[in-house]
Amino acid sequence: MTNQMIQKRLSQLRANMSALGIDYYLIPTADFHNSEYVAPYFQTRRYFSGFTGSSGTLIVGLEEAGLWTDGRYYIQAEKELSGTGIDLYRESDEGVPTPAAWLAGRLGRAAAGMEQSRVQQEPGGRQLSLAFDGRCVSVSQFRNLQRRLSGLDVRFVTDRDPAEGIWADRPELPASEAFVLAEEYAGESAQSKVERLREKMRGSGASLYVENKLDNLMWLWNLRGRDVECTPVALGFGVITMDRQILFVRESAVTEEVRAYAAGIGLELRPYEDIFEELEKPELYREAAGADRPGKTAAAGHDDSSAAGEAAGRCRIYYSPSALSVRLYEAMIKGRDRAFGADNILSAGQEVLSAGKDIQRRSPVEDFKAVKNETELKNIRSCYLEDSAAVCRFLYWIHRHVEEGTIGTLTEMDAERKMDSLRAEISDFIELSFKTISAYGPNAAMMHYSAKEDDCAQLRPEGMLLVDCGGQYLRGTTDVTRTMALGPVTEDMRRHYTLTAVGNLQLMDAVFLHGCTGKNVDILARQPLWNIMMDYKCGTGHGIGYLLSVHEGPQNIRWRFAGGAPEAVLETGMIVSDEPGVYLEGKYGIRIETILEVVEAAKNSDGTFLRFRPLTLVPMDRALIDPQYLTPQTRTSLNEYHRRVYDEVGPLLTEEEREWLREQTQEI
Amino acid sequence: MTNQMIQKRLSQLRANMSALGIDYYLIPTADFHNSEYVAPYFQTRRYFSGFTGSSGTLIVGLEEAGLWTDGRYYIQAEKELSGTGIDLYRESDEGVPTPAAWLAGRLGRAAAGMEQSRVQQEPGGRQLSLAFDGRCVSVSQFRNLQRRLSGLDVRFVTDRDPAEGIWADRPELPASEAFVLAEEYAGESAQSKVERLREKMRGSGASLYVENKLDNLMWLWNLRGRDVECTPVALGFGVITMDRQILFVRESAVTEEVRAYAAGIGLELRPYEDIFEELEKPELYREAAGADRPGKTAAAGHDDSSAAGEAAGRCRIYYSPSALSVRLYEAMIKGRDRAFGADNILSAGQEVLSAGKDIQRRSPVEDFKAVKNETELKNIRSCYLEDSAAVCRFLYWIHRHVEEGTIGTLTEMDAERKMDSLRAEISDFIELSFKTISAYGPNAAMMHYSAKEDDCAQLRPEGMLLVDCGGQYLRGTTDVTRTMALGPVTEDMRRHYTLTAVGNLQLMDAVFLHGCTGKNVDILARQPLWNIMMDYKCGTGHGIGYLLSVHEGPQNIRWRFAGGAPEAVLETGMIVSDEPGVYLEGKYGIRIETILEVVEAAKNSDGTFLRFRPLTLVPMDRALIDPQYLTPQTRTSLNEYHRRVYDEVGPLLTEEEREWLREQTQEI
Repeated sequence: MTNQMIQKRLSQLRANMSALGIDYYLIPTADFHNSEYVAPYFQTRRYFSGFTGSSGTLIVGLEEAGLWTDGRYYIQAEKELSGTGIDLYRESDEGVPTPAAWLAGRLGRAAAGMEQSRVQQEPGGRQLSLAFDGRCVSVSQFRNLQRRLSGLDVRFVTDRDPAEGIWADRPELPASEAFVLAEEYAGESAQSKVERLREKMRGSGASLYVENKLDNLMWLWNLRGRDVECTPVALGFGVITMDRQILFVRESAVTEEVRAYAAGIGLELRPYEDIFEELEKPELYREAAGADRPGKTAAAGHDDSSAAGEAAGRCRIYYSPSALSVRLYEAMIKGRDRAFGADNILSAGQEVLSAGKDIQRRSPVEDFKAVKNETELKNIRSCYLEDSAAVCRFLYWIHRHVEEGTIGTLTEMDAERKMDSLRAEISDFIELSFKTISAYGPNAAMMHYSAKEDDCAQLRPEGMLLVDCGGQYLRGTTDVTRTMALGPVTEDMRRHYTLTAVGNLQLMDAVFLHGCTGKNVDILARQPLWNIMMDYKCGTGHGIGYLLSVHEGPQNIRWRFAGGAPEAVLETGMIVSDEPGVYLEGKYGIRIETILEVVEAAKNSDGTFLRFRPLTLVPMDRALIDPQYLTPQTRTSLNEYHRRVYDEVGPLLTEEEREWLREQTQEI
Repeated sequence: MTNQMIQKRLSQLRANMSALGIDYYLIPTADFHNSEYVAPYFQTRRYFSGFTGSSGTLIVGLEEAGLWTDGRYYIQAEKELSGTGIDLYRESDEGVPTPAAWLAGRLGRAAAGMEQSRVQQEPGGRQLSLAFDGRCVSVSQFRNLQRRLSGLDVRFVTDRDPAEGIWADRPELPASEAFVLAEEYAGESAQSKVERLREKMRGSGASLYVENKLDNLMWLWNLRGRDVECTPVALGFGVITMDRQILFVRESAVTEEVRAYAAGIGLELRPYEDIFEELEKPELYREAAGADRPGKTAAAGHDDSSAAGEAAGRCRIYYSPSALSVRLYEAMIKGRDRAFGADNILSAGQEVLSAGKDIQRRSPVEDFKAVKNETELKNIRSCYLEDSAAVCRFLYWIHRHVEEGTIGTLTEMDAERKMDSLRAEISDFIELSFKTISAYGPNAAMMHYSAKEDDCAQLRPEGMLLVDCGGQYLRGTTDVTRTMALGPVTEDMRRHYTLTAVGNLQLMDAVFLHGCTGKNVDILARQPLWNIMMDYKCGTGHGIGYLLSVHEGPQNIRWRFAGGAPEAVLETGMIVSDEPGVYLEGKYGIRIETILEVVEAAKNSDGTFLRFRPLTLVPMDRALIDPQYLTPQTRTSLNEYHRRVYDEVGPLLTEEEREWLREQTQEI
């Protein structure tokens, strides 16, 4: 993509904006489902900016544009945005304004300017406006914008898709087939899951639950799809009441198997596109609230506001403001208002007061899904063992090339293909869980570097190669990173690798009381680097789905939580990654990522103590370990980990590979 | 105090309750100022329960009573409550209901019962009611109660003092003289501080600020008093507008010096008792909002509700809901309603919507005060040095008694008196910052044990003595704990002491990014104990005032934050304690408390790194250190700390004492 193309697209967009009286366009990275990775159809932010990272927010004004992204992408974004005229805002750097604060400043100045010109010259003048696609922005994001821009008299345009009329060769909406995940893999029936959800709804007095997150929908009904690359989900929206379960799904997804299964569990299937229209229908709310049942009277219209207030109370909606889109919310409120009459008392402060009526919380499905059941855990453990063996085989393959002096004949893409093919050999492999990161030398300093066939580095017999990869299997979703020496390395490389390993091991060894969140334990991974005044600009760990998203909440391991990111208690059965790293722009990158399962350590009068148990069983690189930086505790821990790697993965390897693994896992 | 006395007091209270139709009485540990330690006049909870701890909530029903307290007091409370008929609720234990949840359960059952009896027998029946002294309960606490009891139709009685008519020999309200803290100690003038506060008010559009926390008032105006033992404050309430500063203070506090000083800085002094009446006067709000100035029109009355809404917006109040009492809040709202008319639109959901109008936040004074200025820091450092020397002298005195075989002739009180007298020798010593804890053997397992002349343990030449103490000086407030061997100790004692020391040192050595809170670093202190599945049931650290409260917010070091406790970013210039411990009921207690200053470590492209610098310079007990449990890092750290102790405290000691210190601080 050339930067002239980006400039052209932006000028087309600006022409549209001028015509429509829009001052700023907010273009997040999002589909209609608050997904982290989105199908090509939804890659509008990428289309207008040229920035290919998986996370970022673009704001286009008539004369300037800015793109916000996080530490994983600073280097990449700088490279890709150069020459586009778009300014890069590094989200986690000190003093960098958030998109909302930036808009507040710009719009505030514009408002002041207009005020002045109005006074001096022309009376009237137009209202400032901010546009975005309300299907791609969550209720929380919108409320946050409203708060930050309150007092500025900004008009919000929520029904415009910026790509409309510009993006000529836009990909189609995905349309693949869905499939049913058998209970031997899911471990719990959809009926049981729906019943657990309804219990939560009852507990909080809610009659209707709306879900738009794809992985939550898939988990709830034991379905999977192929609509998003690397994330086995089907596009959909879910509505649940005490009597009904409705899935709005693409017709293409509904195979005979899915149709029969849905009928069997009482799941109604409706066309994906109908969700907005259906949510606007009053019947849904009357029915959900039981208002049309004999013995209960439905409130009639808009006139009797106190009765209406009561009635609205009888169809309390449960939704997650941080996941639900503005347009879904608007449709819901419209539908309920039609059923029970608008609650006039609230019109002044609807947003604030509706908080007291509807249940605005993280989806219970999110919490259920994060705690893997025994069947899932059994599958995950065996899956990680085989996945680890594939990575070990890859490491051995690299080792052989290093030994034989042929490493320099390979490119990053060669390594990536080799890794991917080894993983594909596993019996229940479905697809990769994300595009493999095969990053040599300075490329590894970009956390989410992506090698391309026509643009990738040649390996050399020195320095380090970083490989971050994972797969989707019927037995779970994997993720693992190892960094390896390809020949001579510097003292700094060994020091940084060893301190990263120490952080990784310290977190792996943590014992903590139930009640702790990732914020409590993050420092164990970061401390060795903080001690030398270095930091990695990303979280230490994330949750992982089961044959779903490779990044899954609500738990995670971070030292701080910006912008309402959830801070969830770590529970037995949760899975988190442990991935400290060192990223030196233009020099090298190191990441060691091991996936951990949360298990109970002990229960006594002081509380319930938990600990981690590694699922990933792949050796660290001895050539990069400088023992002087290991503490006695982490040395023991590394040796124990390596012993387990050899004992458990060894039997899955060839004799030759096992011999290499024995060397790699010898005591240090 | 015998338990029969307590039973008698409770039955008197219950007789009053029956007469007034009160079902439950909530009696917190509080004065009118949300103080942690309260003057004898306010010790109503203690009067009715017999529990002498500094923290706890008593709820008295007609047939049962419960007392909630935290982990520091479990053992003590169990002892003191035995035979009173009051049930002990251990706040931080799993599954223990909060007072609000407990009340919700009790009142819910009672309501259900009344409902039934009403249906079956008597129509009518009375409303359930919960009483408390609204001067002693914060707005947040009340709102939380309201939320938890919503739907139960509970009547709240907020204007009853439970002790009225029962507590015959109740102490008088304090009435000591206040004094001015010179700028050589305070480091910043009151004018400058008030200006900083007004900037914050302006920034959030507030016209009136109300403060009832005594340490905030004292800090703001550079005043101190002697109304609360160990906390040099004068009772007072503060009101600040853009034009006025008013301090409502006991007449006894106003010396000639204070009167002249106040006049000099434009501070109006009013009688303490007048605060409620004054807050109800409309003029205050009209004036504050500038509504009675020429060129602006004041809203007239109750009729025009939209004008009234606007006007109320013009006197936005800044207050801290977690500190301000219900009665002060009620008086404020009454006064402002009188000025501008009640905002009728809001009557339905006043509480929620007023959140959008008034500024309900932690006091800015709280944040200012926590970051010590250069003058304060200079004073504090020199103060801690002398205070540490006094503790070293005390340790030497214990050492001599152990050496000479006379330790068994001493009691806990003898040790306490010795420690207190050594501290009193320091030139600017004013009083203790809390009653010294001198706890031998099993007594030390009670975190806040208090020895009494007629009820204290005899020391013996074995086991451990724990001494936790501190002083109030013109140069600051100190706090320190050391645990020492008095003779042979068990292997377990040495192991637990060493692991406590390791935790203490790991936290002391922490390097962390600016943005971290105590929650990020707490695990460094706890990990050695968590590793052996033990925990101490209290926070790891607290802030400390400057010639003010020995416990000061907003920062602290805790692993979790219950009930809206603040989680504040650690800033350069803040002071926190580092006090892990082991508490084994019936066996022994260990605590090592070192006070730390937050200092900058480095600033680079990864951010601003901070670290701690110990202010307390008192050796740990070599006899209790078992080197096998030290890590190389903590061994180095301990040796470095001890070297600093010797180098800096040594010169302040006699030759004999210094020789002992040299031995104590030799390399391990």
